[in-house]
Parts: sequence; C-alpha cells; structure tokens
Amino acid sequence: MNSFGRIFRLTIFGESHGPFVGITIDGVPPGIKITIEDFLEDIKRRNPYLKGTTERKEFDTPQILSGVYNNYSTGAPLTIIFANQNQNSSDYNNLNFHFRPGHADFTAYVKYKGFNDPRGGGHFSGRLTLPIVAAGVVAKKIIQPTTVLANIVEIYGKNNYDEEITKAQQEKDSLGGIIQCTVKNIVSGLGEPFFDSLESLLAHAIFSIPGIKGIEFGAGFKLASMKGSQANDLFINENGKTLTNNSGGILGGISSGNDICFRVVVKPPSSIGQVQHTYNWKNKKIEPLIITGRHDVCIALRIPVIIEAITACVLSDCLLIAKAYS
Amino acid sequence: MNSFGRIFRLTIFGESHGPFVGITIDGVPPGIKITIEDFLEDIKRRNPYLKGTTERKEFDTPQILSGVYNNYSTGAPLTIIFANQNQNSSDYNNLNFHFRPGHADFTAYVKYKGFNDPRGGGHFSGRLTLPIVAAGVVAKKIIQPTTVLANIVEIYGKNNYDEEITKAQQEKDSLGGIIQCTVKNIVSGLGEPFFDSLESLLAHAIFSIPGIKGIEFGAGFKLASMKGSQANDLFINENGKTLTNNSGGILGGISSGNDICFRVVVKPPSSIGQVQHTYNWKNKKIEPLIITGRHDVCIALRIPVIIEAITACVLSDCLLIAKAYS
Amino acid sequence: MNSFGRIFRLTIFGESHGPFVGITIDGVPPGIKITIEDFLEDIKRRNPYLKGTTERKEFDTPQILSGVYNNYSTGAPLTIIFANQNQNSSDYNNLNFHFRPGHADFTAYVKYKGFNDPRGGGHFSGRLTLPIVAAGVVAKKIIQPTTVLANIVEIYGKNNYDEEITKAQQEKDSLGGIIQCTVKNIVSGLGEPFFDSLESLLAHAIFSIPGIKGIEFGAGFKLASMKGSQANDLFINENGKTLTNNSGGILGGISSGNDICFRVVVKPPSSIGQVQHTYNWKNKKIEPLIITGRHDVCIALRIPVIIEAITACVLSDCLLIAKAYS
Amino acid sequence: MNSFGRIFRLTIFGESHGPFVGITIDGVPPGIKITIEDFLEDIKRRNPYLKGTTERKEFDTPQILSGVYNNYSTGAPLTIIFANQNQNSSDYNNLNFHFRPGHADFTAYVKYKGFNDPRGGGHFSGRLTLPIVAAGVVAKKIIQPTTVLANIVEIYGKNNYDEEITKAQQEKDSLGGIIQCTVKNIVSGLGEPFFDSLESLLAHAIFSIPGIKGIEFGAGFKLASMKGSQANDLFINENGKTLTNNSGGILGGISSGNDICFRVVVKPPSSIGQVQHTYNWKNKKIEPLIITGRHDVCIALRIPVIIEAITACVLSDCLLIAKAYS
Repeated sequence: MNSFGRIFRLTIFGESHGPFVGITIDGVPPGIKITIEDFLEDIKRRNPYLKGTTERKEFDTPQILSGVYNNYSTGAPLTIIFANQNQNSSDYNNLNFHFRPGHADFTAYVKYKGFNDPRGGGHFSGRLTLPIVAAGVVAKKIIQPTTVLANIVEIYGKNNYDEEITKAQQEKDSLGGIIQCTVKNIVSGLGEPFFDSLESLLAHAIFSIPGIKGIEFGAGFKLASMKGSQANDLFINENGKTLTNNSGGILGGISSGNDICFRVVVKPPSSIGQVQHTYNWKNKKIEPLIITGRHDVCIALRIPVIIEAITACVLSDCLLIAKAYS
Repeated sequence: MNSFGRIFRLTIFGESHGPFVGITIDGVPPGIKITIEDFLEDIKRRNPYLKGTTERKEFDTPQILSGVYNNYSTGAPLTIIFANQNQNSSDYNNLNFHFRPGHADFTAYVKYKGFNDPRGGGHFSGRLTLPIVAAGVVAKKIIQPTTVLANIVEIYGKNNYDEEITKAQQEKDSLGGIIQCTVKNIVSGLGEPFFDSLESLLAHAIFSIPGIKGIEFGAGFKLASMKGSQANDLFINENGKTLTNNSGGILGGISSGNDICFRVVVKPPSSIGQVQHTYNWKNKKIEPLIITGRHDVCIALRIPVIIEAITACVLSDCLLIAKAYS
Repeated sequence: MNSFGRIFRLTIFGESHGPFVGITIDGVPPGIKITIEDFLEDIKRRNPYLKGTTERKEFDTPQILSGVYNNYSTGAPLTIIFANQNQNSSDYNNLNFHFRPGHADFTAYVKYKGFNDPRGGGHFSGRLTLPIVAAGVVAKKIIQPTTVLANIVEIYGKNNYDEEITKAQQEKDSLGGIIQCTVKNIVSGLGEPFFDSLESLLAHAIFSIPGIKGIEFGAGFKLASMKGSQANDLFINENGKTLTNNSGGILGGISSGNDICFRVVVKPPSSIGQVQHTYNWKNKKIEPLIITGRHDVCIALRIPVIIEAITACVLSDCLLIAKAYS
Repeated sequence: MNSFGRIFRLTIFGESHGPFVGITIDGVPPGIKITIEDFLEDIKRRNPYLKGTTERKEFDTPQILSGVYNNYSTGAPLTIIFANQNQNSSDYNNLNFHFRPGHADFTAYVKYKGFNDPRGGGHFSGRLTLPIVAAGVVAKKIIQPTTVLANIVEIYGKNNYDEEITKAQQEKDSLGGIIQCTVKNIVSGLGEPFFDSLESLLAHAIFSIPGIKGIEFGAGFKLASMKGSQANDLFINENGKTLTNNSGGILGGISSGNDICFRVVVKPPSSIGQVQHTYNWKNKKIEPLIITGRHDVCIALRIPVIIEAITACVLSDCLLIAKAYS
C-alpha cells in the first residue's frame, strides 16, 4: 500500500508531472501548532542549491487541505499538497519503451500493465519525497524533545567531496553516498518484539525512499568481523546507558535509551547524461539511450532531511503506541 | 504487533521457557499439501549439530492445531506449535536485575514494566524463529516455482571459518557473520511503490529475526563508491534481464524478474562465557556478570533457513496481492 | 482511523468549512476508464433538489489530483477532492459551547480537546460523504457486472412521504427513514469467516455514514420471531440459489450468490429549526438553543447513493481478495 | 482476515472437530492478573445447561500457551486454546454435498474450493466463540471500571419464553431471539470519525458471531418513525449526560459518556431435526435432508456472554488508543 504506520499513519499520493503530490497524515494529536512557515526550512534542505543537484527553481509551498484550524492540528486527517510547476514533459518523450536503466520505468510498466504515468517516473518519482518531508515537520514536533539529525558521511567514498561532484558533472555521471542518522534524547521501550522491531519499522520506512539500497544499525556490517566480547555494549548506569553503542540504541528490537544510530547507502542517480546501451522494447534490440533534461549528480545531497522526516514519523507512531501502554 | 503481512499474515507467540512457541498463518490458499514430514528438513537446518551451536537435543516436531484437513490446507488459519522441552530454568536465575549486555533483558523489562517472562529471553528468544521456519515451509510451497536460497558468506570475516569457531569456543567468545540470500525464478511486478517497496517488506520481516543488524540489496553499500555509469544495470532482453545486477533484482521497489539478492549481517551472540563487567540494577553498581549454560558461538550458522523462511513469507504475500490485480 | 479496506483502501479527509474535502483510493486496478463526467450523476443523486433537503446550489465537481493518466486509472493512489464553496460560517457562530443535541459537537470537543474545527460539524460533517460517493463511482466500475441499488423504503413510517416532508418542514422538524440496498449478480465466496464476515465489513463501512443507527441483513430483526423451519433458505439449484432469502445472501459470513439484501435506518437530522432546551457549557445551565441556517428535513433522501458507494467499495475489496485466491 | 483490532488485536483459529480452538491476543497491557479460574464463569455462561441448548458435557478448560507469567500478563502475545473433546464425527458424515440450509457448508465449500474441514461446520462453527469468550475475560479486566452486560430481551417474540422452547424442542424446530447489551461507566471520546466510528467497530466485531443478522444502536429502527424533536437527546449537565438516550451513547461515532446501548437479533439455529427438502449437489436434485445429532433449539441463550466478550475487546482497543492521545 501507499500507507505506513499503525496509529500515526501516512498515505502518499501524486505523480511527478501530475497537478499535485501530497500526503494525508492520520492520527496527528490535536493541539500541535502548525503554520506554513514551519515547513519552509526542511523543504529548502531537501532542495539544496548545491553543486550536484538540479537547479530547478521550484516554489514548493505546501497547501494544507485539512486537519489544521486556527494554526493548530485538529486531530482529524491532515492533508498537505504541493503543486507541480514548471515541468517540461517533452524531456521524457523519447523514453517510452526504451526504459531507463536503474529506474522504475520497466517495473512500473509491468506492474501497472502499461497504464502507469511514465512522465518523470510518475508515482515513483523522487518528487514524492517532498510530502514526506512535510509529514516529517509535523512528526518532529510530536517527538519533542527527541531530535533526529541526519548528515552526509561520504560521497563516492570521500568525506570531502566537492571536487568529485564537479568531476562527475563534467563526465555526465552520477555518484552514490552514505548518510548517517542519529536520534538523541529518546526514551527506552519503543518498538515491539519480532515483527515490529524498531529496526523493522525504521528499515521499512527508509527503504520507501527512492535510491536507498542498504541500512545498518550501530556497528552494522562491522559486526560480522567482531566477537561478542567486543560487540556487547556494557551497561554503565541505571538508565541503561552503555559504554559503547554497537547496537545502535536498539536491543531486542526495543529502544534502550541510548542514541539510535544508523547508516544508509544511497545509490548514484540512475539518470545520467552519458549514452547507455540498453534494450529497447519497441525495436526489440539493444540501442543507445540518451536521457536529456537536468539530472541530479548526487541525490544523497538531498536525502538527509528525508531520512530525518521518515524517522520522525516512525518514532511518532512508536511514541503514541508506547503512551497507550503507559 | 506480533503480526506481519497483508493477506498472507503471520502472528507469532510463545516464550523460550513457556510450554510452547507457535505461529498462526492466516491467508494460506486452500489445497496446499502439508504433512508433518514437510517441516523436518528445514527445522533440522535451523538446528545444525555443528561446531558453534549449542548441542541441545531438541525434538522439535511441529503440532498442527488448525487449518489442515486430510493433509491439505483448508484456507482457514493454520496454527503450528512446538513444545519447549528439557529446558533448565535455573541457568537463568542469576540474571535478574543484572541484565545481560546485548540482550533484550533490559529493554523488555522497561517496555513491559517488569512483567515480562525473563527466562531465556522470554518472548525475545531466538526460539521464536522456530515457528517462523515452519511458516516458511508453507510459504515455499506457495511461491513455487520461485526458490529462495540463503547461505553463509563469511564468519568473523573468513570464508573458511571452522578454525575460527573452535578458537572462539575455547575463548568462550562468540562470532558474527554474513548471510547471503538469492531468490530465483521470480516474476516481475511484485512489491509496491513507496511504503511497501519490496526492499521495505523484506527488510521489515528480516529485521524481526534476533541478531540481524544490517541489510543491503544488490551491490548494497558498495554503491556509495560507485558512479551511475557503473551502477546502472543495462537491460539486455525483453524480459528485463540485465547485464549486471547491482539493484538486487528490485527497481523502484518492484521486482524486475532478475534474481533478488541481498545480504545481512548477524551479530556475534550476546551470551558469552567470559566475565563481563556491567551495571547491576539491584546493587546499583557495575559488577562482573557470568552467564552460565550453553551458548551458541555463532548463530549465523542457524540463520540461513530462517532468512529463507521469512523471505518466502514476504513473497507469498506479494504474489497473492499481485494475483488480485492480474 | 480514517481509512478502510484491506487492498482496496479508502482514506478520507477534510472539513465542512475547510477549503476541500477529499479521498485517496489506494489499490485501484490499473486500466479503469475514469473521466470527470462519470462522477456527475451519482454526485447529483446525493444532492437531490427535492423537498426535504437544503437547496444549496453546490457545484460539486471533482478534481482528480493523482492516479489517473489519459483517462485511465494508473494503479497508483487515486485522490479526488471537492472544493467547499459558498459556505457561510457565521451561521454557526452561536454554537460554541452550546453544543447541538444529536450532533458530534460535544464528542468531537472532548475527543480532540477543543482543537476540532467546529464549523458545520468540521470533519464530522455529512459533507464528507461526497468523496465517498466519488469513490463509489470508481468501485462500481470495478465490481461490474455486479450492481448495487439502494432506495428509500419509508420516511417517518410511510411509503408515500411527500406530505409528511412538507408538514415537517412547516413544523421546523426533521424525519427519519429506512433505506434498502440490494446487490445483484454477485459471485459466491466473498467475505471471510469470523472477523471479516461480509456482514462485518458492510456494517463497518455503512456505520461510518453519519446518521445510520441500525442495519439488518435479509429478514433481519424479523428472525427473532421466526422458527428455523421458516428461516432456513432451502437450496434449489447447483448455483446455491435459494427458495427464500432470509439470510440476505450471506451464509457464515460468505456471499452465497443470492442477492445481498440489507436495510438501514437513518435517524432524523439533528439540526432542526425548533427551539431546544439543552445544556450550555459556557453558562453552565440549560438554555434554549436555536439553530439557524438551512437544514435538511430528511437526510434519508440523500443516503441511497452513499450506501451504494460504500457497498461497492467493500465489494471491490472482497472481489480483489477473492481473486488473489482464485 | 481472522484478526480484529488495531492495537489490542485478536487472531482466532481452529475447527469444530480439529484438536483445538484458540485465540491469540496481541497488545495486552502487561501486569494484568490472569488465572485459569478467571475464565470459568464466563465459559460456563456460554454453555448454559438450560432447556434449549445441547447438553454436551464439555470440559472447556482453557490452556494458556503464552503471554502469562506468574499469573500476570507479560505484554507479549497471549494465546489461549481449548481442546475439542467427545466429538462424534459420524454425526456429520451424511452431509457431504447435501449442504445444510442456513449453514456455511455451501459457501465454505465454494470459498475454499472443497478443501475446508466440513465436520461440524469446521472453522465456521459456533465453537469458535469459546476463545472469544476467553478473550473477553481479559478485555473485561482491561476496561475496568467500565462494565458490559448483555441479556436476552425476547425469544420467538416472547419475554417469558420457557414454554416456547419446550414446544420448539418437541417440534424439532429452533427459535430466534433478541439480545440487548449495555455498557456502563464509559468515558466519552472513544471511537473515530468515519471509518472507525464506535458503531462501525462494534458492528464489525459483533457480526463476526455466527447467527447475528442485525444490530441497532439506541432507539435503532424506531428512529425511522421519529422526528428530530423526539429523537434528539438533550444535554442536561456538563458531563454530557442526556435526558434520553436515543443515540445509544454514541454521537458522531464517538462515545458521549452516556450508556452505550445496542440490540442484536440472533437467527433461529439452522440445524433442526425436521426433514428439509433442499438441493443435493451429488444427486443434482432436491432431496429430503435429515440432520442427526444434538442441536441447540436457541443459540440466543448462549449469545449474551459472547456479545459482552467481543464488546469488551472493542472497548479495550478504543481505550488504549484514546490513552495514546491523552
């Protein structure tokens, strides 16, 4: 489904080149102050005018359709939409049946039997992360004083990556990267055993972001080369504080009160300016494909605020459920 | 919740030292041949009498409580339980309030306000993976001719690991490892955009397995150091077959028909025979803890069949939903 | 939640006096022809310019925000909104804290701690049934050749009720009524045992319509005075056709292939022009309340098309799930 | 699905003539005192040794498989099973393909393609209400001090019905009835607008009980013949207490704090001792059917405690969710 969450629940809709993208948030507690201004900073962070991202001048102002009255959440479903502007559909015309490698063009075509909106990736577009960022703004208010902070760890294997981005731009290529996320000031006891472990919920939500192909909590894949005597986080006080944090703040699927830490890998954007030789379903042969238009060199640059948003949404759900059992 | 899946849905229950662990599978198609014998091989694979695992002689024979009639699934909920035998509770007596590092003892205590069953980890025990393996046996029948195969890639960083295990046993320590899973003969079009991407569903299910701390699809974390021109999988025929498989068989959250490939990291077991200095909530100070009883040196040895099981369950759900829209 | 359905799933949002009311339909099969014109007839049926309903000239034209491309459903979430026009909020100004009897004013205030939008009932308004009618238009296409037809059985106890309505209008009063719904050409095998019996699903959905206070299937409450020998529907052919239909086409929660028949009671609208003496939370005493503005004398007149819509939505979900197991 | 509830969630399993029937309750708050003795009274009420019910001497003692430790709920899934004893399958041998009128035999056969367990109705048996009664015992503890009381209003149209039952027994016939349920001491603010109105949730749950064919809240079907000026419940104090209770304690889908009142109709049991002429799928003609074995003359006699149980389960879920937003 296009929904996620148990009692704080997101439902997302829209296509890249349709009139709007949007989200309905069900289960927002009443009485949370919400103004249009609250959204602007995180929306701006998603669209950095940096080297490496497209320089579209999108005026991404949210419109609130429901769920807010006199600047406070009402408790009823909160729907936010964003108009899609200045899109040039002709950029995508030559893609039909010459599906772009790495994109959802082929799989969407199969899944939806050719009825999907192919323009700009349609419903599979990264544009859909915009309403998620908006939901995150609401969720961050709910989880206070807990904070979520994500940042770039490396791009193309480098901590200092501006030069790599310039080079990739010149080569009409794109770059992958790694984002790290830390949740501070989090209570213990969130998450469920087994199917709704905190790792399960966070991973589920985060893998919904286009381009994410891996996630690791705490020491993550390094644990494969560790011994238990090294990996175990020894408790040092009554709050469950540990000397190390190899578990990433989650034990048995439940938050321990230590910082929740995880890292995700973002693949290099699939749209590149270079010629690619790939099967053309129309001509039934492998042919050169040139993807025109603007392309992000590195979407990892946009991802941190999206990771924060979806993480805050998962935590909102978990905190509300924990409160039900308090 | 202790449930997972949309129309093929698992609900798990039981504690390590309670009378039974079990699972209810709702949404099993009627008419699937199911006998007790079908379960034995996978159950045995979960309990390898290898170096590195405990040598409990558990007679883990499933009892089918419902949902099977004359050796065929009826379509009604299928419940399978396993008796817990020969458990020695006294092994765990000294753990109270001197919570074991790396385990869920502390977080379960907080979450359940001290009412959790602490014996052997209670509901958080790895013993709960036994009913998951049983559910996997049913799911593997449903997804035919699709196959799921998981195996050990490395233990403590080595492909050839028997010696490492012997050494760790002698050191009363434990080892982590990496498991790889491959799904072959899978149709394209499974999974949903955004919140129910195939990566989301698989990761959600797999992180419910105790000890898993990371997952990566296709080229995974290597994508962080790749360029788009390297990472993109070029299509080579009308079935969507690609030259490479860096995407792990999933594009835009939807299966592409190429093999689904992912790897997971299994942490070293937290129960080790060495003395650990960790906070004792009773005495309010850091004290040496000795965990008695038998311990797995490396649970990664048991994990492949569990990964296969949960993967087959996710795919069963996706295949049934895809059929609804066929 | 403000969502309903398992794989064909509705999420509703909006307030009476907010900018829009709307609905997101997830799980629509791709390839269904959908144009704005398709919606107009049912929308008009919901707003009959009859005696007994308010004569607002609302131009309720749906706007499709997503999920339709080139006049066909894409398979992605389909969002439809309706602008709220020509509303006069001042009609409702004197209602604050002098909560209207029979309305959700008091309960919404309690539930949402005073943050609910009180204008025109806010999210609890009958206006929210407009997007449900729109969803029904889509659902009716999905369930073809099955048809759903609802009509008025009686108003204020009379089959011939125009005179009663005129009288009630003059008395500034309102009237209740009964609606009957019949589903024809339905396959057998829909619904689930126990918790998702077809009666359960239909009742759940139908009680979401404001003003419905009872539902009975087949012979309904008359069964209380019947013997088994009278009530049992004897089978007469291999399709399961029965001589009588006291079960309303549902046996053991599952459709039998006979017409599904049920009746619902619609309460008289709670907004009446007469003075009502009811507690005023502001003055802390019982005081006369006069509700100004236009009021429906009998909302039962509007309800049939809404019942049809929600019934078609439930059946769409059931049919898709049945197809998953076909 | 065979599950119900959002955070207090039931999953039911079992067949009439299988080894066990049972239920898993997920989301039970930890720390609730639970002993086997707690269940006995309600279980006994479900099986009245009265005229009109079968006199099976079933020793229906619950076995707790999980979720209770030292007589307190742990917070983990609570599974309760009941052994099926002394069943005589031969009673049902002649029913194959001569499906019993009024029963789920035909619809279950269609839905499950002939793989359903037909013995005693299989999964569709009234025996499945036994685990629901057990879940109700747990739920009644959770909702304290709220109480739920259901009782028989009439059998075959009579308040004083013992004579009718004797007569029906002699005639080898069966009788329908009406049950009323009242929830006292309930807080206001439970339930959700639209799809999870309290009427929706209660009706959904109650229609899962075999034999229920109608439900009405408050004045119910009488509202069809009422005017708004009669039907409106005028508020008389600051707690929302009303002069009348035609709304059944629910306004806009949300509890008002007044008693929740509803009535349900129970059909006459479909198994009767009289000969019935009904289609035989084997012989392809209408033939006399004789159903041997013991039959309840009136299952309405057993239903009150089941209604109470399922009502308490719905309220547990609503109360926990309300607490999440408190």
